[in-house]
Amino acid sequence: MSGLSEDLASLPLRERLTLLMNNEKIFHVIFAQQFDRDVLDFLCRTATQLRKVAKSVEGAKFLQTLLGHKSAMLYFTQPSTRTFLSFVRACQYLGMNYSEVRDPRTSSMVKGESEIDGVRTFSSYFDLIIMRHREKGFAERTAHLMNQIARPVPVISGGAGTDEHPTQALLDIYTLQRSFEARPNGIEGLYLAFMGDVARGRTVRSLAQLLACYPDVRLAFVAPEELRIRDNLRAFLDRADLDYIETEDVNEVIEDVDAVYVTRMQDEYDVDHESEAIDYTRFHLTLEHVQRMKSDAIVMHPLPRREELDPRIDTDHRAMYWRQERNGMWIRAALIAYVFNVEARILDYYGTHYNY
Amino acid sequence: MSGLSEDLASLPLRERLTLLMNNEKIFHVIFAQQFDRDVLDFLCRTATQLRKVAKSVEGAKFLQTLLGHKSAMLYFTQPSTRTFLSFVRACQYLGMNYSEVRDPRTSSMVKGESEIDGVRTFSSYFDLIIMRHREKGFAERTAHLMNQIARPVPVISGGAGTDEHPTQALLDIYTLQRSFEARPNGIEGLYLAFMGDVARGRTVRSLAQLLACYPDVRLAFVAPEELRIRDNLRAFLDRADLDYIETEDVNEVIEDVDAVYVTRMQDEYDVDHESEAIDYTRFHLTLEHVQRMKSDAIVMHPLPRREELDPRIDTDHRAMYWRQERNGMWIRAALIAYVFNVEARILDYYGTHYNY
Amino acid sequence: MSGLSEDLASLPLRERLTLLMNNEKIFHVIFAQQFDRDVLDFLCRTATQLRKVAKSVEGAKFLQTLLGHKSAMLYFTQPSTRTFLSFVRACQYLGMNYSEVRDPRTSSMVKGESEIDGVRTFSSYFDLIIMRHREKGFAERTAHLMNQIARPVPVISGGAGTDEHPTQALLDIYTLQRSFEARPNGIEGLYLAFMGDVARGRTVRSLAQLLACYPDVRLAFVAPEELRIRDNLRAFLDRADLDYIETEDVNEVIEDVDAVYVTRMQDEYDVDHESEAIDYTRFHLTLEHVQRMKSDAIVMHPLPRREELDPRIDTDHRAMYWRQERNGMWIRAALIAYVFNVEARILDYYGTHYNY
Repeated sequence: MSGLSEDLASLPLRERLTLLMNNEKIFHVIFAQQFDRDVLDFLCRTATQLRKVAKSVEGAKFLQTLLGHKSAMLYFTQPSTRTFLSFVRACQYLGMNYSEVRDPRTSSMVKGESEIDGVRTFSSYFDLIIMRHREKGFAERTAHLMNQIARPVPVISGGAGTDEHPTQALLDIYTLQRSFEARPNGIEGLYLAFMGDVARGRTVRSLAQLLACYPDVRLAFVAPEELRIRDNLRAFLDRADLDYIETEDVNEVIEDVDAVYVTRMQDEYDVDHESEAIDYTRFHLTLEHVQRMKSDAIVMHPLPRREELDPRIDTDHRAMYWRQERNGMWIRAALIAYVFNVEARILDYYGTHYNY
Repeated sequence: MSGLSEDLASLPLRERLTLLMNNEKIFHVIFAQQFDRDVLDFLCRTATQLRKVAKSVEGAKFLQTLLGHKSAMLYFTQPSTRTFLSFVRACQYLGMNYSEVRDPRTSSMVKGESEIDGVRTFSSYFDLIIMRHREKGFAERTAHLMNQIARPVPVISGGAGTDEHPTQALLDIYTLQRSFEARPNGIEGLYLAFMGDVARGRTVRSLAQLLACYPDVRLAFVAPEELRIRDNLRAFLDRADLDYIETEDVNEVIEDVDAVYVTRMQDEYDVDHESEAIDYTRFHLTLEHVQRMKSDAIVMHPLPRREELDPRIDTDHRAMYWRQERNGMWIRAALIAYVFNVEARILDYYGTHYNY
Repeated sequence: MSGLSEDLASLPLRERLTLLMNNEKIFHVIFAQQFDRDVLDFLCRTATQLRKVAKSVEGAKFLQTLLGHKSAMLYFTQPSTRTFLSFVRACQYLGMNYSEVRDPRTSSMVKGESEIDGVRTFSSYFDLIIMRHREKGFAERTAHLMNQIARPVPVISGGAGTDEHPTQALLDIYTLQRSFEARPNGIEGLYLAFMGDVARGRTVRSLAQLLACYPDVRLAFVAPEELRIRDNLRAFLDRADLDYIETEDVNEVIEDVDAVYVTRMQDEYDVDHESEAIDYTRFHLTLEHVQRMKSDAIVMHPLPRREELDPRIDTDHRAMYWRQERNGMWIRAALIAYVFNVEARILDYYGTHYNY
């Protein structure tokens, strides 16, 4: 098993995706790139319907019957509030039982157990493993283990090191879809600026990759010289023929973009305090910036924030980040429903059969 | 937001209460003094009915339908067993979903997020925030934030530093109400002695304030010289025209009181180990003391106890503290039902419409 | 209360069992030896039926109605994953509310409360206490406290120090019963080898004691000289007239046994690193060993494992340890159903009245 990790890392993504899906009965969620446009549209529609159904007491009770016979393990060994709590709420909305392991000190791993035996144990007791893990590729390895054992369960990654964070990308897409659903072409043709540490923010990379599913999207990367997008993302954007610019000055684009996606300095990935040498204040979004944005533009942020996003923006109608956070709950609930094949019951809730 | 705290602290309580209630749709619970006699009576009646309904399997199932569509965040960053678990049980009795954040190390706050952003996040995912916090005024600040945002949720304080602990005061009142419900005037006219560290026990101050709602209550404060009640409580008692005495000798009052409320030394609030110089053994309640009490008197204690309350008292019929603890669960469930306006369904459970 | 512990330890087990059961309404689970053959058979049958019922959505929903009005406290102050999570899942299958206390730092015990007051508090709020505790005899003491108070609740031990681990023994018995149910006499007449640290593994002692309920069972203890079974177990085996051998060489028995039960070195109980002097590699089970076992033999392990059990065995059909782990969930759910007297409703689920 330990060797598998290196084997996987050396494979092209296309082959890794094929490997991931080699158990037909199980849908793992590991990479943002698993999702094509059809599935993205479908998940967004499911999330919107779920949100609507949940508003009535009767609807909320109906949702809780969907997965009352299923259970999830939330294995979160990396600190997290939002991702964790929104998955908890997603389980609760669907009536799913769950339990959590967050602090390895309360677990048997102190007795010398391998972590992969630990996650196999979760699959003995639960029907779904949702995991956030510091080690790159650990969720993928777990999914592969599942594809090989007698009682496999699906694995959903809630973020893996500097690696993928697929459900963050889903909630970002859902936020864009909701925010621009009144436009005839929705997300298509949007102009979106990423601002800040676009080198190391996994949310930036994942969302940029998903946006390639939508025609005519244009991107701007507003970042300090030291934190520009990396070569692998640049290669992806070129291959996908996505129109993008890079700049160090947000003023060049702020009046033109439909959305600005602010990110904090990801200094937890510093090797030697290199972030400290960077003047990040030029990549702080201020209320003055926002007031120059188009009236129907939006401000996004994956949260938590530090100083890069002025709290005075909170009350501006363009501030979308608090709703973006709440959208995470809805899209994760939609995703879990999809993993267990009960999404049609949500879409059909009001009696009209949904064609898909 | 950081400035708000100081602004609030300088306002008279009456104005703070008005501010707290300026969102008509939301009922926050921050101060014991929010509750007038009518609400206290009503909550006690609801708790008693809830307790009765919960005894049957059918009744318990009914209660769990009341708030199955609602969720609570239990944000407890100060150590607590009783308050936490009784709120958990209150949520469970009402069928409410909940989650908890207790250890800030597992949360995003390690990434530099402000705590007020953290609680705002809770309001994105949950319908109620129950919090216990070391910082004085933090629950009040959170309630004010809620009154200003697009998706506000009610806040219930589960204790705040040396400050208020309103639900402890409610459970104490409920314990007195239950213990003396056979008396024609219930709590009215009772003689109650507080014993021990009456200077720093927030339960003492909160309960004393609520007892001012009941005519003819008399109080005794049995405390070492160094731990006598403080000037602000004394001023309150004088204003409320409450009859009270102060003494260092429990023998002066033990045979006369209807209830003795024992408290432990609150040495966690010591600035410089000043508690160590105090001989607290004179403020230990012994079995011999209890045997001299009136036969229908009761012994209360907020628990946990150390040596100030002799375990041999546990089997005496006057020992009320274990039932007092359990009462906390019932009154908190009643309070949550009240916050969400479903208490009438509990009161009407047996078919007879309750007039209130 | 503190004296009670020593009093208990000096009593013969028979008297301790009688004391434990002196409250007719309450069934505590503290010792493996509480269970006679009839109860073991009955619990196994209940577990098998529960497992079958849980497979359908309707059945799973039915099970969750059984204890929806009850609640459990999981008090686990010793690290544990499997025992904890399988009890959690057992509660969830039965629809039971539960809460947990695992980290004493978040509890009131930091204020100087006695632990026995702490568990009494749990009994104020909950209907069942499930506990795992480092201190030998603590679960038994708690059960005795329960037998003395006004609102007693049952106590189930989830393992106590080097002491008893009764539900591990139950799941081992259930695994043997399931694995050999096709044999006319089931467990009777089996030949089972315990391998490894048979001196300090509480699972070894507990299971050996339960196997005495089954005629003609034979045992082998394969252990290093330093870790041979201790005198009290040897005395038990002699009294029970159980046929057993002791050896240092697994090759002597591997081809003959029906089951080999591998255990890891229990070095957490070392006083002075004495384990380090032992060559444990001779007590590692390899794939080569397993391939020499009878085709219908099984490999068991209480997990977690270190190096004593080769992961290459995992895919051999004789590897039973992952199912053994999952069996823990079913037998614990059956046990809780039994404690609350609802097991008949499970056994009668398919309409035919079960005769017992």
